[in-house]
Amino acid sequence: MKLMEPFKTELDLQTGVLEPVGHTSQRHLSDMRHMYADMDAVDEILAQEGDRLIYEVRAVDLPEEEGQVLHSTTIIYPGRVGEEFHMTKGHFHEKRHCAEVYLGLAGQGYLLLQAEDGRVRSVPMRSGTMAYVPPMWAHRTVNIGDGPFIFLAVWPGDAGHDYGTIEQTGFAELVVDREGHVTCVDNPKFGEERQ
Amino acid sequence: MKLMEPFKTELDLQTGVLEPVGHTSQRHLSDMRHMYADMDAVDEILAQEGDRLIYEVRAVDLPEEEGQVLHSTTIIYPGRVGEEFHMTKGHFHEKRHCAEVYLGLAGQGYLLLQAEDGRVRSVPMRSGTMAYVPPMWAHRTVNIGDGPFIFLAVWPGDAGHDYGTIEQTGFAELVVDREGHVTCVDNPKFGEERQ
Repeated sequence: MKLMEPFKTELDLQTGVLEPVGHTSQRHLSDMRHMYADMDAVDEILAQEGDRLIYEVRAVDLPEEEGQVLHSTTIIYPGRVGEEFHMTKGHFHEKRHCAEVYLGLAGQGYLLLQAEDGRVRSVPMRSGTMAYVPPMWAHRTVNIGDGPFIFLAVWPGDAGHDYGTIEQTGFAELVVDREGHVTCVDNPKFGEERQ
Repeated sequence: MKLMEPFKTELDLQTGVLEPVGHTSQRHLSDMRHMYADMDAVDEILAQEGDRLIYEVRAVDLPEEEGQVLHSTTIIYPGRVGEEFHMTKGHFHEKRHCAEVYLGLAGQGYLLLQAEDGRVRSVPMRSGTMAYVPPMWAHRTVNIGDGPFIFLAVWPGDAGHDYGTIEQTGFAELVVDREGHVTCVDNPKFGEERQ
């Protein structure tokens, strides 16, 4: 059996930048327009401001195989769409028994979790918070602060990503700014079939 | 199936302290006396100074099952035994296909890796270094600095620990202080059966 060579990546603990980086992906507002509750706010931003960058993921390239330990950093830029804070798409792992762990590096956020029966949990995150996504929970992160919310994620190589389930149902709760207060509210559109 | 509840642990990125901590383990010189090349130096330290604390591990309690993502922090205190720098015992994973990733938090160290055929690699680590232990490699960390060397480790829940192989053979290379220079040298005792 051919051995993989050990290697290292330098992580800037303030900015989340990886050097060297394997691959980077960006999610703009247009990539997730159906995920925000306020469609009028989405259209208004796209028309007036253009296609806003919501978040970026920088990942180390590794084989997506059982036993490997995948890792990446995510930067969610600050802002809101209507009253809803910027967030990631959110996903289940294809292999539902695969967990994940986050380490907050900068800024302030929430980890939102949702079980297949609709149960929702939220975990506040800041620099130094290790937040655990146990097996079976879909997970989304939300930036509730004024600066970038940056974290490291580590998960099993064979976990896989199921974005489709969350794209169809949404999350049962939204994290919103209500008169200057960060608040979790019921998602009025939860469970509706999306386009 | 009963769901695990999500939770968080606060990690002090400077000291490696976890709050709350699941379990802590300490390794003193007497726990690893056969692992240092210079047995006279070991005996001298034990006689004159007592049983020195070499390193501590703080871990989050999680089920040791496939799909879980275990994580812990390690503090290796600075110092030498003879000319050899303080280090961890080192181990293979019982499940050899299981990898591991480290994130350096403070201090200066080396990750030493060894394959079953005796091949050795070393990866320098400092704050922000993410060092990858690919499948099949035994791994040991070494503190080459003047202060504590502190890092986070993340590995698959079902990896298991095989300390015995390394206890019997040692590592093929030692990390030593030679006239003020950090140097990797061949281990004269490599492959000898230990007590």
